Amino acid sequence: MAASTEGGCAPDFAAALRRIRRLAWETPVVPLELPGVPPTHIKLESLQHTGSFKVRGASNRLLKLGAGQRGRGVVAASSGNHGRAVAEVAGRLGIRATVCVPDWVDPVKLRAIVAAGAQVVRSGPTYDHAEERAAELAARGGLTPVHPFDDMDVIEGQGTVGLEVVRQLPGVEEVIVPLSGGGLVAGIGLAVRDRGVRVVAVSAGRASVMARSLERGHPVELPEEETVASALSGGIGPGNRFSFDLCGRVIDEHVAVGEGDIRSAVRRAFRECRLVVEGGGAVGLAALWSGRYRPRGRAAVVVSGGNIDGRLLVTLAALRPSGPPAPHDHESG
Amino acid sequence: MAASTEGGCAPDFAAALRRIRRLAWETPVVPLELPGVPPTHIKLESLQHTGSFKVRGASNRLLKLGAGQRGRGVVAASSGNHGRAVAEVAGRLGIRATVCVPDWVDPVKLRAIVAAGAQVVRSGPTYDHAEERAAELAARGGLTPVHPFDDMDVIEGQGTVGLEVVRQLPGVEEVIVPLSGGGLVAGIGLAVRDRGVRVVAVSAGRASVMARSLERGHPVELPEEETVASALSGGIGPGNRFSFDLCGRVIDEHVAVGEGDIRSAVRRAFRECRLVVEGGGAVGLAALWSGRYRPRGRAAVVVSGGNIDGRLLVTLAALRPSGPPAPHDHESG
Repeated sequence: MAASTEGGCAPDFAAALRRIRRLAWETPVVPLELPGVPPTHIKLESLQHTGSFKVRGASNRLLKLGAGQRGRGVVAASSGNHGRAVAEVAGRLGIRATVCVPDWVDPVKLRAIVAAGAQVVRSGPTYDHAEERAAELAARGGLTPVHPFDDMDVIEGQGTVGLEVVRQLPGVEEVIVPLSGGGLVAGIGLAVRDRGVRVVAVSAGRASVMARSLERGHPVELPEEETVASALSGGIGPGNRFSFDLCGRVIDEHVAVGEGDIRSAVRRAFRECRLVVEGGGAVGLAALWSGRYRPRGRAAVVVSGGNIDGRLLVTLAALRPSGPPAPHDHESG
Repeated sequence: MAASTEGGCAPDFAAALRRIRRLAWETPVVPLELPGVPPTHIKLESLQHTGSFKVRGASNRLLKLGAGQRGRGVVAASSGNHGRAVAEVAGRLGIRATVCVPDWVDPVKLRAIVAAGAQVVRSGPTYDHAEERAAELAARGGLTPVHPFDDMDVIEGQGTVGLEVVRQLPGVEEVIVPLSGGGLVAGIGLAVRDRGVRVVAVSAGRASVMARSLERGHPVELPEEETVASALSGGIGPGNRFSFDLCGRVIDEHVAVGEGDIRSAVRRAFRECRLVVEGGGAVGLAALWSGRYRPRGRAAVVVSGGNIDGRLLVTLAALRPSGPPAPHDHESG
């Protein structure tokens, strides 16, 4: 099933990039050289506006809404990054946004959603609770749902990451991309596959619904497990329309990483590369640094987000303060 | 006095950029948008190889040495970043390096210097002790000194930051640059002034030797004060040959920031921008965020380094671990 061409509307990533440019930045691609690791490049969506790639899909979706939809407002379910992106884009465009989050939402993401002026609905102990709540609000309140991954406008927006990578890194042969609901992988895959670029999808072992679904040939449901890659948690929906099929078409290789790999990657990114990366954003680095995946050619690792709570980062990086804070530390915010 | 054309050798920044490219990366320029702050761009030398711009000057200097000089080895005095850069470049080029550091050298920088294979000489309680020790070793041991700022090859190397900025940010009208010994400011200033770009130099109030010297019209000496911008500490040398004159020629405006401004900038960069920036690297952000400087046009703030000890960052960011580390935390590095 050629989901991407349903209705004759193949994604147009170049047009999407022009559309979203004032709301979502071109993020840098920088070299990564560490002892004992093959040299590679990283695409820093952790430095993206809102702290993750999600602002691309959210911008693309919201900019395509009609005036009536804009007037009634939007609703999104999110473990945090998508919600933050929807909240900030909606705020810029003057659209009312409601964001449904699981109880375990990262506090740094929650604060940003609130600061952007969105209404937050704490929905229950799992991501799926947030999805159910968002669906209810959409049905009852006439709000337009902005799905985090199973939506062609969102997928088109996320695919702009791939278009930027092929422009920024001439000769790139493979992209290594975090896999969760599949919006980012599907978008990047569609954007780069015509250019012969391999797509390597990396999932957290404890957030493997898409990987298990692809193995079995249909969307499956699994109990939600706690993971340091919280951004990757959640199901793909038993009635998945786009991202499951697209992932099946575009993924050349799948790699799973464990919790220890991810924690170690967050720590090394911080200590050795001076990068603030959240667990879900670090799975590509985790695949590389754990040796679970070795690139076969010129590779770009997508670091998809950096919205990690500072206290969690301190824990993962095994740091302690160097002494009592100086008096200045409480002066200014 | 036209120091830059002494001996008929005006700096050639384009040639320097080609020379150093395999050792020093093109760092990204990214937009910076925070509530209450004029939108600007930042040049992230904190993501540079070795964690600071210093690798540019060190590469340029070492690549210009003759075979005899390379064989005898080099010596550098450094508060850390220059030493790390010299150590890593020397290691790549197969040159023996000795690095003289003050006793208060940041541990993250010290570890990197040792890891790169250089010999470290702890030289005493101040940066000036390290300079004296390096001069002794150069005189006695036939080692070639690699000065951190008062050397035209080093200045030419640092100036490549400016060349990159004007290429990466079309229409840039001013650059905001940390000021210490003046190598970075002099290099960037020479590289951009023909294009009508204003140079704003920012110093730490507690590391203001160059600023005081420029006010008085000659190099002065001041007692060394402790500052969170430790990379900016140290004198400019009573016999300063190049950087003092050049700074006088290229600086359009000078701004001084206080310790509280710098601490706050390190904290905000980390918490709000997901950037790991050291105190000395953050003075441009500190000038902007404290309101001590307001850009008059399209500006680029040079964030010159990110080699901050993790424990100090935790202290400055006023963070605490979120709980006891999980068992994974001690497994891998």
